[in-house]
Amino acid sequence: MTKAVLSALIRPLVEPRLPDWVEPIWFSTGEEAAELASQAEIGWFDLYDHGQMADVARAATNLKWLNSIYAGLDFLPLDLLAERDVVITNGTGINAITIAEYVVMGMLNIAKGYRDVVRAQERREWLTDSPGKRELYGSRALLLGYGAIGKLIEERLIPFGVEVTVVRRTPGENTLAPDEWQARLGEFDWAILAVPATPETDGMIGAAELGAMKSDAVLVNIARGAVVDQDALLTALKSQSIGGAFLDVTSPEPLPADHPLWDQDTAHISMHLSGRAQTKMFQRSADRFIENLGRWRRGEAVVPQMNLALGY
Amino acid sequence: MTKAVLSALIRPLVEPRLPDWVEPIWFSTGEEAAELASQAEIGWFDLYDHGQMADVARAATNLKWLNSIYAGLDFLPLDLLAERDVVITNGTGINAITIAEYVVMGMLNIAKGYRDVVRAQERREWLTDSPGKRELYGSRALLLGYGAIGKLIEERLIPFGVEVTVVRRTPGENTLAPDEWQARLGEFDWAILAVPATPETDGMIGAAELGAMKSDAVLVNIARGAVVDQDALLTALKSQSIGGAFLDVTSPEPLPADHPLWDQDTAHISMHLSGRAQTKMFQRSADRFIENLGRWRRGEAVVPQMNLALGY
Repeated sequence: MTKAVLSALIRPLVEPRLPDWVEPIWFSTGEEAAELASQAEIGWFDLYDHGQMADVARAATNLKWLNSIYAGLDFLPLDLLAERDVVITNGTGINAITIAEYVVMGMLNIAKGYRDVVRAQERREWLTDSPGKRELYGSRALLLGYGAIGKLIEERLIPFGVEVTVVRRTPGENTLAPDEWQARLGEFDWAILAVPATPETDGMIGAAELGAMKSDAVLVNIARGAVVDQDALLTALKSQSIGGAFLDVTSPEPLPADHPLWDQDTAHISMHLSGRAQTKMFQRSADRFIENLGRWRRGEAVVPQMNLALGY
Repeated sequence: MTKAVLSALIRPLVEPRLPDWVEPIWFSTGEEAAELASQAEIGWFDLYDHGQMADVARAATNLKWLNSIYAGLDFLPLDLLAERDVVITNGTGINAITIAEYVVMGMLNIAKGYRDVVRAQERREWLTDSPGKRELYGSRALLLGYGAIGKLIEERLIPFGVEVTVVRRTPGENTLAPDEWQARLGEFDWAILAVPATPETDGMIGAAELGAMKSDAVLVNIARGAVVDQDALLTALKSQSIGGAFLDVTSPEPLPADHPLWDQDTAHISMHLSGRAQTKMFQRSADRFIENLGRWRRGEAVVPQMNLALGY
C-alpha cells in the first residue's frame, strides 16, 4: 500500500475513485497535515495559509510526489524538494479556460468602454454614443507567456481578427524571442502578461517597457502582481502614457483600500477572480489526480510536472 | 452623367473617389433632400429622422438605386420602391464585426458577474470570490438569425467551446429548422437574437418561449426590441424563470427613464450602442458604395441587395 496524505476538502471527489493500492490519510487542518506529513509518499497538502503549506512540505521527509491545485507554487521550498527528488504536479491549466475567457472579457470591456454603459444604466440614462469605439478586429496583441493559459487566449483572440504575437524561445510565425519583444512593444495595442511567477519575470514590465507602449495600448495582467512595477504603472496610467490596464493581479493582494490604483479610471481591477469564475476547479483537479494515480502505478510520468529548475 | 443625390455627411469620404460619370448632388438637411430627390437616379438619403427619410424616398420618382448605411430599412415605403423596381443596398454587415464582439462581451460579463466586480472596485472592495462562476466553455447557444452578424457571432463563440446551434431553412449539422427551435429551447444556456426586423420576427420571443427556457438561461437581443414581448420578458426576469437578458435593443428606444427594465438586476441594457462601438462605420460604408458604383457601371449586381419580398 502507498500512503497518500490528502486534504479532506477534496475527499468527496477523490475517495470513491481511489485505486486499491492507495491508502488515503485525510487531514482537515494545517496542524493535522504537519503531523501526518512524514508518512506521506504521495501528498496533496493544499492549505490556504501558504507558509503553513511550505512547513508541511518540509516535514514530508518520505515524499515522492506532491500534487497541488495551485498553478503558482513559488512559495514552497522548491530547492529542498528538488534535493529530495520530489516530483511536483501543479494546477497549471485547471483555471486556464476561465482565465482565458476573463482576458477576452477584459479586453472587450475596455474596447467598448462598457464600464460606462453599466454606470449609465444605474443612472437610467440612455447613452447616444458608445463610450468606447475600439474593435478587437484588426488590433495587435503581444502575448507574454505561452503556457496553458497563453495558448487558450491565443485560440480565442485569433477568430476575433486579432493579430497575436507570442514571445517564446522556439522561433516561428508571429513569434518574438525573449530578447526581441522589448524593442517591438510600440507596435502593439495589447500587451498580455500570462507568464509564470519566477525570479526572471519579476518586474519584467517597468517604466521603460510602459514608456515604449503606444499611448492607447492596454496592459492585461493575469500573471502575478510582481511581474509589473506597480508604481511605474500608476505613473503611466496617470500621465496617460498608456491607455489602460486590466489587472486581475496586484501587489499586494488584497489591494489596500487606500491604494491610489482603485481610483485610477483607466485601471480595471478584477481582484484575482479570473480563475475562480468557474465551478469545475475541484472537479478538474480531482479528475487529473485520479488519472495521475494510474500513471504513477504504471511507472509513467505524471502531468503536468513542474520543472524545479525553471520554477514553473 | 448619372445624378446621385447624396448626404453631405459622407462627402469627405466619397467625393475624392467618385468616378467621372457620376454627378453628385449633396444635401445637408431633410428639406434639401426632399427638394432634390426627384433628380436622383442614385440616392443615399440617410437621415436621422426616419419618417423624413421615407418621405424623401417617396419623392424620388426617378430613383433606380437606393443606398443606405442602415441595416434595417423597414421604415421605408418598401412596397412602393418594389413597384418602382428600385434596387436597395443596405448597411448589412457594416456593423457586424463590432456587434459580434459586443455579443461575446455581454455573454462573458453575465457569465462572470462582471458588473458586480465593477461596482466593487468603485467601493474599493477586494472581492474574495467571483460573483459569476459560469464558463462559456461547454455551454450551448441557440442562434436565431444567420446573416452577417450571426455568422460572425458563431465564428467567435465556437473557439470558446460553445456548442452553437443555428436556426435556418437549409438543413445541416447543429441546425434546427424554423419550426423546430421552439420545442428545443429548454436545451440551451443562451438564446441569441440576430434576426432581421420583419413582420415574421415581430414578437417571436413571447411568454411561451421564455417559459420554455432554462431557469439560468440568458436571452441576448441585438436584433430589434420588437422581436421580444418586453412585458413577458420583464415578468420572466422578475420571477427568475430565466437567468438574465443582455438587451442592446428595447421597445421603445430610448427606454423611458421610468421604465421598470432599468432597475431589473438581471437586465443588462446597452442602449443600441453595439453597432456604434467602432470608428470605421462611415469608412466601411463609403468603401462599399464606391465599389458598388463600379459594379453599377459595369452592369453587375450591387451588394448587398435587400430582398424586398422578404424585407431584409
